[in-house]
Amino acid sequence: MITLTSDFGSPYPAAMKGVIRRHTDAELIDVAHDLPRGDPRAAAFWLRFVLPEFPPAVHCAVVDPGVGTDRAALVVRAGDHALVGPDNGVLLPAARELARADADDDGPHIEVFTWSYDDPASATFHGRDVFAPAAATVHETGVDAVETLARANRTDDYTNLRFPEPTATEHTAVGEVLVVDDFGNAITNVPGRVLADAFGGTVAVDGESVPVRRAYAELGAGERLVTVGSHGNVELAVNRGRGDDAFDVTAGDSVEIGW
Amino acid sequence: MITLTSDFGSPYPAAMKGVIRRHTDAELIDVAHDLPRGDPRAAAFWLRFVLPEFPPAVHCAVVDPGVGTDRAALVVRAGDHALVGPDNGVLLPAARELARADADDDGPHIEVFTWSYDDPASATFHGRDVFAPAAATVHETGVDAVETLARANRTDDYTNLRFPEPTATEHTAVGEVLVVDDFGNAITNVPGRVLADAFGGTVAVDGESVPVRRAYAELGAGERLVTVGSHGNVELAVNRGRGDDAFDVTAGDSVEIGW
Amino acid sequence: MITLTSDFGSPYPAAMKGVIRRHTDAELIDVAHDLPRGDPRAAAFWLRFVLPEFPPAVHCAVVDPGVGTDRAALVVRAGDHALVGPDNGVLLPAARELARADADDDGPHIEVFTWSYDDPASATFHGRDVFAPAAATVHETGVDAVETLARANRTDDYTNLRFPEPTATEHTAVGEVLVVDDFGNAITNVPGRVLADAFGGTVAVDGESVPVRRAYAELGAGERLVTVGSHGNVELAVNRGRGDDAFDVTAGDSVEIGW
Repeated sequence: MITLTSDFGSPYPAAMKGVIRRHTDAELIDVAHDLPRGDPRAAAFWLRFVLPEFPPAVHCAVVDPGVGTDRAALVVRAGDHALVGPDNGVLLPAARELARADADDDGPHIEVFTWSYDDPASATFHGRDVFAPAAATVHETGVDAVETLARANRTDDYTNLRFPEPTATEHTAVGEVLVVDDFGNAITNVPGRVLADAFGGTVAVDGESVPVRRAYAELGAGERLVTVGSHGNVELAVNRGRGDDAFDVTAGDSVEIGW
Repeated sequence: MITLTSDFGSPYPAAMKGVIRRHTDAELIDVAHDLPRGDPRAAAFWLRFVLPEFPPAVHCAVVDPGVGTDRAALVVRAGDHALVGPDNGVLLPAARELARADADDDGPHIEVFTWSYDDPASATFHGRDVFAPAAATVHETGVDAVETLARANRTDDYTNLRFPEPTATEHTAVGEVLVVDDFGNAITNVPGRVLADAFGGTVAVDGESVPVRRAYAELGAGERLVTVGSHGNVELAVNRGRGDDAFDVTAGDSVEIGW
Repeated sequence: MITLTSDFGSPYPAAMKGVIRRHTDAELIDVAHDLPRGDPRAAAFWLRFVLPEFPPAVHCAVVDPGVGTDRAALVVRAGDHALVGPDNGVLLPAARELARADADDDGPHIEVFTWSYDDPASATFHGRDVFAPAAATVHETGVDAVETLARANRTDDYTNLRFPEPTATEHTAVGEVLVVDDFGNAITNVPGRVLADAFGGTVAVDGESVPVRRAYAELGAGERLVTVGSHGNVELAVNRGRGDDAFDVTAGDSVEIGW
């Protein structure tokens, strides 16, 4: 199985699928192709959220504002999974999460390879010209045999994106909005456990009291709430509305939760 | 085969696919993931329109503004098909339509089961945590064996959504716009047969005379028309334009057709 | 394999997939369903760009502003591929490109067949009622046996869309914007070779000097550039921005490149 993720919109991902189909009959599953443009961090968040749901697979993820420059192409092995994409951090948070299942006493192990490629047909569409063939080749060779490929060279020198950690005191956490989802929910980096005793009550969001609920529909349509989303993080939401608008926040904004 | 329908946008449906892939190799086909947010009635319309085109399948449909509340999860068997989703009516119009093929003298039969689920991982994403595993389980068990599953319990107590019927006199039908499609066509609940003698002529739409044509391109670009859409209902349209704008209507609005 | 292309948005393509699934288990791959509405030329551009990446397949492409009128349905054979869609030119540029691989001394050969169809269930959704069954039938019969089908009749009378050619002098090319992609890149019909000696320098776009670069990220965010896109044509772009806005152009606009 090969999953495909990008910020390409349409119809560029189909060109990648055609290229892959010339190499392999592997099943193709789209993760998303409408991720925020040129934003490896947002893509890294979504890959970390979605990919652990999958059985072992090759994941081709191309959010690549540096396409055509000298940034490397990477293949990352994480347990029985492989991730293929540009060296800008986009693959790493998901890779660490996928590797957790195989973690030993030293913690999760990932192995990172640079993927060398000949002068590609374009400098603007490495999804088609570099990453799709790489993903197909890794799939056909096998995730456990990446090192047998001449194009793959182990490296310790790569962009190792990590999400910012919130700063916490006894009764507050100052975090940040990592992404806003399609519903308008503002997903923060604050772990949901800070709300453990607050369900049914309120917390202060940037000083304003907001109800804490498990389900959106526990409040009326249009009402603001704080909840723990399906990613386990604190989320600023509106029942049947957009949290980003109601809380006036966007990705990257700082948020203080007080309880 | 498992079809997937939601109002989730992107990339949430991919998480559902990952979960399903851990249970079954069934083919996955997307119906739509951009249905009107939190609107079970619109989703019910589209499911009734699309699902009867498919051969026997399990259809997982999650438009679920009550996610995380105590609304039940349902499995509905309709002929050789099964539908899986929340108990808010979204599954029923399609189920009745799918059951028609197997109808006997007493009419189409559907069987409704509640699907009991353990405390799910989230209160905000039952698509991933409840409905995807349920659909995969029903698929693996077989549509004809739903009753063998301990989680499935037959029920007569469910939300049985029906679309409103138009009120008709000899020369008028007062109906309503059920949905507006991506082209802007305003699809009403008025059956297309009321236009049978009007093609090439006109009808009155809320008192204004509008041409009735079989094909959009029988009129010039930008011109309004009334036609019978591919769902068999009266549709307010504009050749190469948006009917909803030109007729100033949206889903739920009343429309009177006079002939 | 059957690929699907349309301007239908959602969920109409799913109805086509259901119909196809009643005829064949062929793999289904979406090219795009959000192509510019009712614009066969834009669709023809994208089909010509994407389809040559695929191994032999049946390509069903429905951008069809004349749906329900007397325009013919076509099946075009091009090498080991077949294309199915309306007779408005949408299939032809891709067919010629696909046929190139099999070209002999007389150039690429395509064979065009009209596809006769019975009175379809709708006059507004031939994607479901005409083209999906046609594509499934061609797939099941085999691309090399189209002529054995009673519905297929060879023809020389069809809309043979060709893209406009730029007019060139020694130091200028006057071309046109063919399409704008989802990134906002304005893709012209001017062949990329006119920029061969200009990389790292500038060209004049409608008289204004603009840097020529191979990769978007060779310039700062928001800066305009001219590049050769992955289609081999001159493209007006902005690093991490929209070229169409920055150059104030849209599909169909004339552009003069001077070097």
